[in-house]
Amino acid sequence: MVDTPGQSTAAFSRRALIATGALGLATAGGVGAAAVGTPASAGGTPARAAAGVTRRVTIYAEALPGNQFGYGLAPGQATVPGPILEIYEGDTLEITLVNTTTQRLSIHPHGVDYSVDSDGAPLNASFNNPGETRTYVWRSHEMVAAAGRRFMPGSAGYWHYHDHAMGDDHGTGGIARGLYGALIVRRRGDILPEKQFTVVFNEMMVNNKMAPNTPMFEANLSQRVEWIAIGHGNLFHTFHLHAHRWADNRTGMLEGPADPSQVIDNKDLNPGSSFGFQVLAGDGVGPGVWMYHCHVQQHSTAGMAGLFLVRNADGSMPPGAEEAIHRFQGHMKAAEDHTAHQ
Amino acid sequence: MVDTPGQSTAAFSRRALIATGALGLATAGGVGAAAVGTPASAGGTPARAAAGVTRRVTIYAEALPGNQFGYGLAPGQATVPGPILEIYEGDTLEITLVNTTTQRLSIHPHGVDYSVDSDGAPLNASFNNPGETRTYVWRSHEMVAAAGRRFMPGSAGYWHYHDHAMGDDHGTGGIARGLYGALIVRRRGDILPEKQFTVVFNEMMVNNKMAPNTPMFEANLSQRVEWIAIGHGNLFHTFHLHAHRWADNRTGMLEGPADPSQVIDNKDLNPGSSFGFQVLAGDGVGPGVWMYHCHVQQHSTAGMAGLFLVRNADGSMPPGAEEAIHRFQGHMKAAEDHTAHQ
Amino acid sequence: MVDTPGQSTAAFSRRALIATGALGLATAGGVGAAAVGTPASAGGTPARAAAGVTRRVTIYAEALPGNQFGYGLAPGQATVPGPILEIYEGDTLEITLVNTTTQRLSIHPHGVDYSVDSDGAPLNASFNNPGETRTYVWRSHEMVAAAGRRFMPGSAGYWHYHDHAMGDDHGTGGIARGLYGALIVRRRGDILPEKQFTVVFNEMMVNNKMAPNTPMFEANLSQRVEWIAIGHGNLFHTFHLHAHRWADNRTGMLEGPADPSQVIDNKDLNPGSSFGFQVLAGDGVGPGVWMYHCHVQQHSTAGMAGLFLVRNADGSMPPGAEEAIHRFQGHMKAAEDHTAHQ
Repeated sequence: MVDTPGQSTAAFSRRALIATGALGLATAGGVGAAAVGTPASAGGTPARAAAGVTRRVTIYAEALPGNQFGYGLAPGQATVPGPILEIYEGDTLEITLVNTTTQRLSIHPHGVDYSVDSDGAPLNASFNNPGETRTYVWRSHEMVAAAGRRFMPGSAGYWHYHDHAMGDDHGTGGIARGLYGALIVRRRGDILPEKQFTVVFNEMMVNNKMAPNTPMFEANLSQRVEWIAIGHGNLFHTFHLHAHRWADNRTGMLEGPADPSQVIDNKDLNPGSSFGFQVLAGDGVGPGVWMYHCHVQQHSTAGMAGLFLVRNADGSMPPGAEEAIHRFQGHMKAAEDHTAHQ
Repeated sequence: MVDTPGQSTAAFSRRALIATGALGLATAGGVGAAAVGTPASAGGTPARAAAGVTRRVTIYAEALPGNQFGYGLAPGQATVPGPILEIYEGDTLEITLVNTTTQRLSIHPHGVDYSVDSDGAPLNASFNNPGETRTYVWRSHEMVAAAGRRFMPGSAGYWHYHDHAMGDDHGTGGIARGLYGALIVRRRGDILPEKQFTVVFNEMMVNNKMAPNTPMFEANLSQRVEWIAIGHGNLFHTFHLHAHRWADNRTGMLEGPADPSQVIDNKDLNPGSSFGFQVLAGDGVGPGVWMYHCHVQQHSTAGMAGLFLVRNADGSMPPGAEEAIHRFQGHMKAAEDHTAHQ
Repeated sequence: MVDTPGQSTAAFSRRALIATGALGLATAGGVGAAAVGTPASAGGTPARAAAGVTRRVTIYAEALPGNQFGYGLAPGQATVPGPILEIYEGDTLEITLVNTTTQRLSIHPHGVDYSVDSDGAPLNASFNNPGETRTYVWRSHEMVAAAGRRFMPGSAGYWHYHDHAMGDDHGTGGIARGLYGALIVRRRGDILPEKQFTVVFNEMMVNNKMAPNTPMFEANLSQRVEWIAIGHGNLFHTFHLHAHRWADNRTGMLEGPADPSQVIDNKDLNPGSSFGFQVLAGDGVGPGVWMYHCHVQQHSTAGMAGLFLVRNADGSMPPGAEEAIHRFQGHMKAAEDHTAHQ
């Protein structure tokens, strides 16, 4: 399979990033990643803070064709969105950002802990000048007991990172041109997926593309796939996925029969917000081509739509899938022509 | 009481739909609906999957006056919004959609399980041509245990259905003209309401009407009423109900003292999203006329507002209610005149 | 410290409001406020309804310079936003609203219980004419058991109040000019904060100000600060706070290891909605100047941004903080000049 930006498989970047320190990551003094399905502890109380590891990664910010910019884990490999970065609660991520461009830029994370010099914001003079290399340190922590049997929340979540310095002090230029990506902080015991897709709604685009050039995400029937959805820009959107649904909570799964979370298949995806969930591809609905799209009518019609191809369990194409893909490309092409003629 | 679109009583469509198979529904091999307040099981774990029933319903898509379209359970009975469809987790709903119009159209559900040929989307060649009859099958399921003591979510929720084929491949034309309705999937043990109201925020309208012609929902003091709120179109809204509130979770009620859900009386209601909740009419506040409205100032002022009339327990009008209703009609009429003169 | 609108300390208004009845509040026949960390009951079931107290407060609605209006707890002390009003579930708040202005206006609360004559809406003839004094009664209640082990929600929440009568029947004029404030209903056992900040996103402003004149909120390292965020007007926003995060539930804290709530640092803040949370200032990230801002790029760039100054534990300024503050004022001043020239 071709490596598509925003799409990763367990064999490629994600699992490696967590567990083996490949792709420029060096682990320092830490334990390995928890296995799938290992709960934090048996008794329902959080495990003691595990000895977090420090992972080091070099990220290259690069100019791309079409006035786009991207982050990548090696020179010449920048993509839009950037790579999925993934750690466990308690871990530290040290990012050496190499700015290969002629623009001021930075990397600013959501959710994790950082001191002012790793803020990534010009407010705190935290950015890379053109050609400059700078290290940002992102820490994370487990939940901490507070009074009244409550807990101050830990860092676990489907977060994201983005430029905060190109164009203006809020990174408006960098975000518009593709400097963003997913950041996942897992709680020990979280279920790990087999595939991951990053979907960024940014202005009227998905991952800075419009249909029919939006990403087609692929999985085999019953594979556990993880979606990380991120909002950026100036417009408000709602993310809808056909034939699949998830709980509107931290993991997208229910914590048990008393979990009160609403189950949804359509969710606001607005600037600066992110969420994630896992589904079993085609579970209960079968293989086929399913749309994901913004449910704002003018947005979906204009091209904020893409395909989730669920192949047969053996990887072969299900009946009708080729036709649906051609239909998607054709209809959307027609819409483009129509727009061009106006 | 006159049967108002978007408003149903236990004696009319809803209870019948669940329990007795009236109104064109045929049950096949299933058990009856659970009684109010019967928990799924005593021990806090989900009941074993009950033998789901298959219900069959014929829905007629019809043209209505004023360039509107509606779904109905019998010829000549189409309304905007369409009827409330309601099943239990595990049930299957077989919908025979009769397209009596000259337009291509379909029916696409949120939340439930369907194979590609019941997608309702032109992408999968799943729609009714003018005059055509086609059957769509919607299945549902209970939650399923996953690793780590988590559960993949079941189908229970306040969902909705809508056209996905009129005007363009996303049903923009059908949705704009009224082809939408509420779909409820209940978990066994859920509390059943005495009355139900469907509120659809679609562009600057409520159920495709503007004040003072928006629906006036009615209940007697302390009746358990269920609101199903649905968003459509291109605009973003917030739904506010005066003097009543609900938990921001699956049911609108708290699952117990440790349920962390925020309690709210104002919630985003954006294209493709839906939620529902139950309130006891006038509970703690007494009978009277209460407004529901979009809280975006320009939207409420322009007519995205309606009334919730809580009558006395015996059904009589509370003091001041008539005056408030006349005031609503008058003020809104004044706003209309003002707009017309500009 | 100067008393900044929207910012209160335990020594000033909040704690007094809850526990001692200062600032014009008179307690009537009630018990004192629960101490920090006292759970509602040991067994996980809600405590029996405590004997609620009735608190009486006089609020003055006043015209302010710059065509603004505000609510205040004494003549000449109106602010934008108005004072934080705070009670426990079960309490009643009797508000005598003195309208010192030449405009029709009212006070309408979210979340609490009120009969039609305290609705604050012209629909129910509930408002103050110019110069008029009128009493509004807001009641509250604890959760109540329903069938199926569920509970109808209590009143606890981060709510708000606002005008509903100036300019039009929805208070569009009063809200635009500053007639709004925070209302907190606590559950017994809730953790009380040391400082409180009210942030209102109203059109393109924060508390009706634009940067660099937006509020700079201040706390010392590790102080427990409570943020109450409120949305108003016509525009949609997302509230983002740098280097701090909270659970997306009633309190912002986790109820325990099984609390499924998503942890977030960016949340939709739209007209009529509100939420609140507590953070330990600079916890895990250290002292410094942290931005809060709307994450819609055009909004933050236009001035929907402010500062959260986390001082050292002893109240002294951390290194770099003065520079960051000057930078904020300068950059935003440059943006203003740039806008003015266009």
